[in-house]
Amino acid sequence: MKTVITDKYWSRKISLVTDVIIPYQWEALNDRVDGAARSGCVSNFEIAAGLKDGEFYGYVFQDSDLAKWIEAAAYALSVPGAASRGLGEKIDFIVALIKKAQWDDGYINTCTTLTGRENRWKNLFERHELYIAGHLMEAAAAYAEASGKTEFLDVMRKFADLICDTFGPNENQMHGYPGHQEIELALVKMYRVTGEKKYLETAKYFIDARGVGENYFELEARDPGYPAAWGAPKDPTANQSHAPVREQKTAEGHAVRALYMYSAMADIAKETGDTTLLTACETLWNNITERRMYITGGVGSTANGERFTFDYDLPNDSAYAESCASIALFMFGWRMNALTRDAKYIEAAETALYNTVSAGMAADGKSFFYVNPLEVVPEYCAPHTSLGHVKTVRQKWFGCACCPPNIARMIASLGKYIYSYEHNTLYVNLFIANEAETDGLKLKLTSGAPQDGFTLELEKETADELTLALRVPEYAEGYRVIFNGSEAAYQIKNGYAILSVTGRGAFLIDVRYGAPARYVYSNPAVSRNNGLAAVKKGPFVYCFEETDNGKGTASFFADAEREISSVWDEEQNVWKIKIYGKYLDGSDGKLYSRVKPSGRGAELTGVPYAIWGNRGEGEMFVWVRYLT
Amino acid sequence: MKTVITDKYWSRKISLVTDVIIPYQWEALNDRVDGAARSGCVSNFEIAAGLKDGEFYGYVFQDSDLAKWIEAAAYALSVPGAASRGLGEKIDFIVALIKKAQWDDGYINTCTTLTGRENRWKNLFERHELYIAGHLMEAAAAYAEASGKTEFLDVMRKFADLICDTFGPNENQMHGYPGHQEIELALVKMYRVTGEKKYLETAKYFIDARGVGENYFELEARDPGYPAAWGAPKDPTANQSHAPVREQKTAEGHAVRALYMYSAMADIAKETGDTTLLTACETLWNNITERRMYITGGVGSTANGERFTFDYDLPNDSAYAESCASIALFMFGWRMNALTRDAKYIEAAETALYNTVSAGMAADGKSFFYVNPLEVVPEYCAPHTSLGHVKTVRQKWFGCACCPPNIARMIASLGKYIYSYEHNTLYVNLFIANEAETDGLKLKLTSGAPQDGFTLELEKETADELTLALRVPEYAEGYRVIFNGSEAAYQIKNGYAILSVTGRGAFLIDVRYGAPARYVYSNPAVSRNNGLAAVKKGPFVYCFEETDNGKGTASFFADAEREISSVWDEEQNVWKIKIYGKYLDGSDGKLYSRVKPSGRGAELTGVPYAIWGNRGEGEMFVWVRYLT
Repeated sequence: MKTVITDKYWSRKISLVTDVIIPYQWEALNDRVDGAARSGCVSNFEIAAGLKDGEFYGYVFQDSDLAKWIEAAAYALSVPGAASRGLGEKIDFIVALIKKAQWDDGYINTCTTLTGRENRWKNLFERHELYIAGHLMEAAAAYAEASGKTEFLDVMRKFADLICDTFGPNENQMHGYPGHQEIELALVKMYRVTGEKKYLETAKYFIDARGVGENYFELEARDPGYPAAWGAPKDPTANQSHAPVREQKTAEGHAVRALYMYSAMADIAKETGDTTLLTACETLWNNITERRMYITGGVGSTANGERFTFDYDLPNDSAYAESCASIALFMFGWRMNALTRDAKYIEAAETALYNTVSAGMAADGKSFFYVNPLEVVPEYCAPHTSLGHVKTVRQKWFGCACCPPNIARMIASLGKYIYSYEHNTLYVNLFIANEAETDGLKLKLTSGAPQDGFTLELEKETADELTLALRVPEYAEGYRVIFNGSEAAYQIKNGYAILSVTGRGAFLIDVRYGAPARYVYSNPAVSRNNGLAAVKKGPFVYCFEETDNGKGTASFFADAEREISSVWDEEQNVWKIKIYGKYLDGSDGKLYSRVKPSGRGAELTGVPYAIWGNRGEGEMFVWVRYLT
Repeated sequence: MKTVITDKYWSRKISLVTDVIIPYQWEALNDRVDGAARSGCVSNFEIAAGLKDGEFYGYVFQDSDLAKWIEAAAYALSVPGAASRGLGEKIDFIVALIKKAQWDDGYINTCTTLTGRENRWKNLFERHELYIAGHLMEAAAAYAEASGKTEFLDVMRKFADLICDTFGPNENQMHGYPGHQEIELALVKMYRVTGEKKYLETAKYFIDARGVGENYFELEARDPGYPAAWGAPKDPTANQSHAPVREQKTAEGHAVRALYMYSAMADIAKETGDTTLLTACETLWNNITERRMYITGGVGSTANGERFTFDYDLPNDSAYAESCASIALFMFGWRMNALTRDAKYIEAAETALYNTVSAGMAADGKSFFYVNPLEVVPEYCAPHTSLGHVKTVRQKWFGCACCPPNIARMIASLGKYIYSYEHNTLYVNLFIANEAETDGLKLKLTSGAPQDGFTLELEKETADELTLALRVPEYAEGYRVIFNGSEAAYQIKNGYAILSVTGRGAFLIDVRYGAPARYVYSNPAVSRNNGLAAVKKGPFVYCFEETDNGKGTASFFADAEREISSVWDEEQNVWKIKIYGKYLDGSDGKLYSRVKPSGRGAELTGVPYAIWGNRGEGEMFVWVRYLT
């Protein structure tokens, strides 16, 4: 389906990605941005291609920055007006470089090429060769789809073939699996684009082999020629190799690795019908969304290993909640929906998208959050405190530049996630205004904001029966479907309102519901949130910033019995809110005192978490105390 | 004054120190404890003394463990019954070793002796030579006082003389100062014991020179022969060399270093009458006690550098609050009281003593806390979380064994801190039962617990007027003094009830007050504690443990209007308490929900924080939510 987003909120972000971020990243990857950390990405490929002299620069996973950029740029080609910026030429230039840097047998990796060819496949634990391969494959698939050109795809097929030959269960194959998952979902993508079955089989091999028998990373580390980079393999939980994937019941370890792996598991379950994988995915999904996810869709509670920790361990101030992890959660949710067609997966994916992913990028597209805390008091986050990993303002560009290109590719490809069209059923998953077209269908969705319902204009060229499956979000109240001007009856199935559309012609579907701002409470097992409430309106979680409310929101207690006011902000294209309560901040000034803090009535202004931190540095709270 | 503690609560701890800890530490220092981390302390001295072959083992500050042990053992000699255990012989054995390991010019340090004599004084930043010297001097002073023997003191005088020759403002002297303060207060102690004025002068030199002009640690690091051990000097704030000490307005950096330095500043102000130092001390004291101290007397909010952070930054779960830092706070407070005779300093010192210092040691004396959090959920403190530094049960012995010997020497010398006797005024500072004697005075203080008032029997041999200054603790209600059976009038001055006692003979002073358990609230600026209350009764802060209350105290909301019940626990010699309120833990089971948690009435049992963690691992909370 070709989808062009017309939504005001998202169009602005997409334009930032295509007009600001992708060109900026291009300059950064070419080391032409004054003051930015050196990237070395393009240069590494030029050296590896034999086009110039020099040394490899960067992390072992440096190549992946370039791959993510190509993927984002490929998606941008489909955004009207974006093609004019010479993106295609830039991609072609890089593809030519990659091809020149490719080994005769298909292998691509500038770090190995330039720092020791003998180290190939010798340290799967940390050298990220398969991770980079995966990102390059995703980029090649995206570029082939966007441009119709197959040169890059052919280059990557050659690499994929090598990987399929090299890794597998047979005696003449290596029995390893990657330290950072990504190749698995990429191989499924290659399979889907090329139809080559062995790509799917090798993806499944990596999933099936992981955590079975002796840990591969310990095994490979015993090789006398082991090229250790950052020390020996430690906790296998960190990269989900502690148990066979089907036996993993809780989300553990590095959040991005985990979620890339779960995404691949869902993909493979979809393609192969493997119900054991489906069951494992459901168990892991439930563990995350019922016990280990911030209300903002953030995951990964600690900076220590950027990882999942324990059920209900969701500290607000020291949260890691990496932007990339929420993108990966979105991906996993989207795939689970593809597999089950249950709308609950979209619900959580939408939360991640509208909150943590959205917040990752500044309003001007020029700076990014890696870490997405739910509570910030800037002074507490100085480098020498326990919260030193929390940045209180977005950062320009990082030495390890994973989040900005990941956010870019997510937003540039957002059009892919609005609809699913399968077996004559059109699923409407996200309420982002757009115009779309596919075989025999033209769609136009208009909506002010996801809280406000939407209108779908549908042009149908054939008389075949079409099933419409409109997601009924959990936050919708009084959900109604007006079909060609009349109230329509619908069935609810797995969170979708199901209607039949028969005959050809134009149809107007008007979906109306309310989504008032509501207080939300945590499960009392989340010890940090007892006595605290947050506000949600539609998929947006709200926060309270110093710029609106002054300092001291920590001593505000909301009167949760009072209704929350909402005001539309035309400029920002979001609803703002007001909550009412009182400050309990009267004291005798002592550090500890028998005087119980007393109060004065007050109100706070809340804005979507998605847009926080765009008006200077200051305190920010998602959770506020409430009067009991 | 010779003081023998008869108090049931403290006698038990003192016996543990003299009968269990000091003998255990002796074995540990001699590497004779199976399963304990190697110490190497005695062995290092044997090698340095030329008595055996071998290599230096341990940290650069390893010698200080032995010094602290000698100091504690010296105090233990004054505890009745303790002398029989051969402690004197053991100390004499070590003193002989130290003497043999001493260089001809007086220098002592086994690390330098055994790993490179050329490195002497070359890295004051991190090699801890002056720190070790200070601890050895404290030990020598304590042993001379306890035993009357002066051999060790003479050894240390020789070292002190060398230090006074080496460091100072003159052209032929080094203009450095220590990376870890300790020598300053030790030199004052040496001055007090020996009367040698230059010790005081050099102590003052170290204080005066610190943070003035170019940072010495950066200077010395530029020497081509600089023996770096752990990297180059970084943030000068970490060791309080960022500014001249008189210009330091806030407590910064490593908490133990800071407080050892402030203690020395107070000592020097006392001995020299330097009012600029007094003013600096008052400013720093107020900053700590009004903005940077936990209710338990813990200080140092972050594990990251074991340091002070910012005003009101007092996280309960990630607190560092090292046991040693609270001992140092006690020392600083005690010295500020000696300087000003203001009881407020004892009040805070008493809080540190009865809470963080007390909690540092297990009830059986066999394990210790370094880190003293105010909130523990054991699962959250796994090694791979952000709270990995928090141990939920006390640890046996540590590679860096600073806290256990520090706690030992603090408790073994506790008798020194009950009274001050100066200018015919007897200050009664702590309400710990004891029998004491000094020129012309015999004292017997009896008390069940510091919350319960006390009786002082006084025998006075001369007719000279004696001023009694009885500390009126902040927690006392209805304070009365019954003097020889009659209600006595008294003046209040600086927190003391002042009475005159004239004539010789026996006097009976009965001090009566109530100290009911009370809810205490934080200054609303402490953002982590808004909506939370703690309970104090006398100097004891209470906590709520899983073993008494089950899991889920985080969802308990106290009814702070209801009175708190207190029950005397004869076995533990403490008051236990009960608070009343309700759990707000009813929910629909979702992670986030519109359902406001609802409650059921409940009560919690609280025990003094001092004794927490002695009944198995479990949740522990000092602060609980209250119903607004």
